[in-house]
Amino acid sequence: MREVDLVITGEKALLLDAKNTCLDRVAIAINAGNIIAVGPTEQITQQYRAKKTITANDSLIMPGFVNCHTHAAMTCFRGIADDLELMDWLNNYIFPAEAKNVNKELAYWGSLLAAAEMIKSGTTTFCDMYIFEDETARAAKEAGMRCLVGEVLFDFPSPNFKTTAEGIAYTKMLIEKWKDDPLVNIIIEPHSLYTCSTPLLTEVKELAEAKRLTEDYHLPMGLHLLENAAEKKQLEEKFGKSAVSFLGDIGYLDEQLIAFHCVYFSDKDMKIFADHGCKVVHNPASNMKLASGVAPVPEMLKAGITVGLGTDGCASNNNLDMIKEMSTAAKLHKVARLDPTVMDAQTVVRMATIEGAKALGMERTTGSLEIGKKADIIIIGLNKPHLTPLYSEYSHLVYAASGADVDTVIINGKVVMENRRLLTINEEEVMHKVREIAVKVKQSLRE
Amino acid sequence: MREVDLVITGEKALLLDAKNTCLDRVAIAINAGNIIAVGPTEQITQQYRAKKTITANDSLIMPGFVNCHTHAAMTCFRGIADDLELMDWLNNYIFPAEAKNVNKELAYWGSLLAAAEMIKSGTTTFCDMYIFEDETARAAKEAGMRCLVGEVLFDFPSPNFKTTAEGIAYTKMLIEKWKDDPLVNIIIEPHSLYTCSTPLLTEVKELAEAKRLTEDYHLPMGLHLLENAAEKKQLEEKFGKSAVSFLGDIGYLDEQLIAFHCVYFSDKDMKIFADHGCKVVHNPASNMKLASGVAPVPEMLKAGITVGLGTDGCASNNNLDMIKEMSTAAKLHKVARLDPTVMDAQTVVRMATIEGAKALGMERTTGSLEIGKKADIIIIGLNKPHLTPLYSEYSHLVYAASGADVDTVIINGKVVMENRRLLTINEEEVMHKVREIAVKVKQSLRE
Repeated sequence: MREVDLVITGEKALLLDAKNTCLDRVAIAINAGNIIAVGPTEQITQQYRAKKTITANDSLIMPGFVNCHTHAAMTCFRGIADDLELMDWLNNYIFPAEAKNVNKELAYWGSLLAAAEMIKSGTTTFCDMYIFEDETARAAKEAGMRCLVGEVLFDFPSPNFKTTAEGIAYTKMLIEKWKDDPLVNIIIEPHSLYTCSTPLLTEVKELAEAKRLTEDYHLPMGLHLLENAAEKKQLEEKFGKSAVSFLGDIGYLDEQLIAFHCVYFSDKDMKIFADHGCKVVHNPASNMKLASGVAPVPEMLKAGITVGLGTDGCASNNNLDMIKEMSTAAKLHKVARLDPTVMDAQTVVRMATIEGAKALGMERTTGSLEIGKKADIIIIGLNKPHLTPLYSEYSHLVYAASGADVDTVIINGKVVMENRRLLTINEEEVMHKVREIAVKVKQSLRE
Repeated sequence: MREVDLVITGEKALLLDAKNTCLDRVAIAINAGNIIAVGPTEQITQQYRAKKTITANDSLIMPGFVNCHTHAAMTCFRGIADDLELMDWLNNYIFPAEAKNVNKELAYWGSLLAAAEMIKSGTTTFCDMYIFEDETARAAKEAGMRCLVGEVLFDFPSPNFKTTAEGIAYTKMLIEKWKDDPLVNIIIEPHSLYTCSTPLLTEVKELAEAKRLTEDYHLPMGLHLLENAAEKKQLEEKFGKSAVSFLGDIGYLDEQLIAFHCVYFSDKDMKIFADHGCKVVHNPASNMKLASGVAPVPEMLKAGITVGLGTDGCASNNNLDMIKEMSTAAKLHKVARLDPTVMDAQTVVRMATIEGAKALGMERTTGSLEIGKKADIIIIGLNKPHLTPLYSEYSHLVYAASGADVDTVIINGKVVMENRRLLTINEEEVMHKVREIAVKVKQSLRE
């Protein structure tokens, strides 16, 4: 018998592999962070002796969720201003709150709070764009979360840099500092086409290209794209062509491109994205709450685009719960098209796991329960009134479950939450620190 | 000092009264099921000696939610068939499952499971329409839930009656049996205008009228109305006028009328409803999942119509969580109108509490924390990462909270859940019984 770090046994597992395998009476053996065996409980327990065993009765075992777009530290602004006109919201609340309050401390504690919330609702990997991302990386590392983080870059100063040169230097620092980390990956993130000049966009793309030629780790590019109608109009006027065509002109259209939102995508945009292997991240709750519009996701999927799911940040959602996001994604497109068959539950669960991993270029690492992948696994307790009876696991995940049903979370083979107790984060301390920050934030908006 | 049954003390309470009062360091005194005092903690605790005290630290005290439209026993069909065309879903799954399986046992255990789920997500009152409603009333009574229940009536036989005469007789029995009950109220519920003949509609309206003249308890009328586009078209062809005009012809347009869904309401329909004091119940999750459409709720509110919120049944939602429903209601109308200011958080919380109570004609009993009303109160725990920091209670309830955040529920002055432990329902037994029923349901669909 081979000794391994961890064996999880349970009644049922959704693997989210290519065949959507669902296994009963299943066990998963994990060693050195990797899934080394998945199979019938008896077979696995005869083959492996575990240092630690987790028994998942009345539960569902599945890969952790991949939150493909968020701004983690913005938990500090959760609920600060809602139900407002976009420009009122941005100019009178979000921008001043950020300008006056965002610093390393806020970035660190806000990100740690986000990690706590994400783990407690089953997310094991997140892709982040914000300010002082080294602090977000540090928080994720401490929390034991897998992440893909990028400093937001634009032409105007941020609380972290006075010039774009400083912003690019900071990004280079992130790349060097975290290049061998098992959990932290770096993404290059120009904010959007309406906040970045062509020289900046070109320079950061060269940075990504050069790194991709010499390094083996992920160095994708991420940016907000066509989130609302005003942006589409403005960009078409600015470029004299569609935003997606302009992306072609500056060499952005390749498999490394991850575009967030893409609400105003034409059929032609979709064809171009599909032809070039560009990825899309869908953020339905944010698109609804900010009244941005409905992204043509069923059409994107039909066109062959890889689409991941994201919560966006807590100023525009106001939560980081991927189970809520799945529910929203499944229902929004049905009503928008008056067609109850689009975005079926299984499609949406895949979007929140393996398709999200593909969108981030991390599908060899995470997103499904398969031998050779990292052990990013969640266990969802099913013995609850709202999950009874059980006809379909996928339906329950999308239409009935809640983040609070996630009992246990394993990331990179390490148990980070067990029976809803966080093992890597001092929850009370984090909430206390963020409440102190919030007092200052509130004060700053009165000044 | 006066002795009372219960005093709740806490840091913060939303009263949901006409002024949307929010009180800090608050206490509520309850005796014989009634709220007898609401005020500063010191004042109340000096005035009243409590047999039982609940201390709600790090929590929000508020009225329980009013779920204005559901089919409780359909928990037994939760997730049995999703993401299908409406007619495929109804004819090949829901109707056969009902015809083969609905009996007193299913109605009772399904309703008790629904009560468990509703209490655990903060609902204290629900309005139900289904088959064998005497069993639903019995389950609600045992669970300690306030309810307004009505046997569904239509021209064809149901598992409970062969003829409409039997259905009407059953409704009369319900009225007589439950007339003095402190928790159970009866509503008369012809299913819809497309399943009920004019003679049936007229006869049941007379039943309601007669009762209203002689009795003091609630006897409203409820029916599904204009849920989808096909129904609107069909009814206009059938009546040669709009469905709402037809309701006027048969004397339905008064303050006792509660119409469920009303997705396809014209400006004229809204004016007629407003002029006659008719009520509307909005079920956004069901309308999205079944791809029915988006009800013009902001316009209804502007027209002065009282609109309550409902989850609909578990075949079309698939949950009974009013916090999820609030989140859906707030976001759906923003994106449908591309206007982030409609359906603000406070409006939606009112719709889920006091406006819902008004819609059901129960606003003298429940829906807000005011002296003289019944003590239908919930306590929501706020000391959680996803509810940190706290800038706005209303925003948190609508955009960040989850049903699992409800810790304690009091209905009619009785504690029915304390620190998430149900005190009136044997959860394990109920889930076991419904799982047994589900095995038969699954088998019946294979036959």
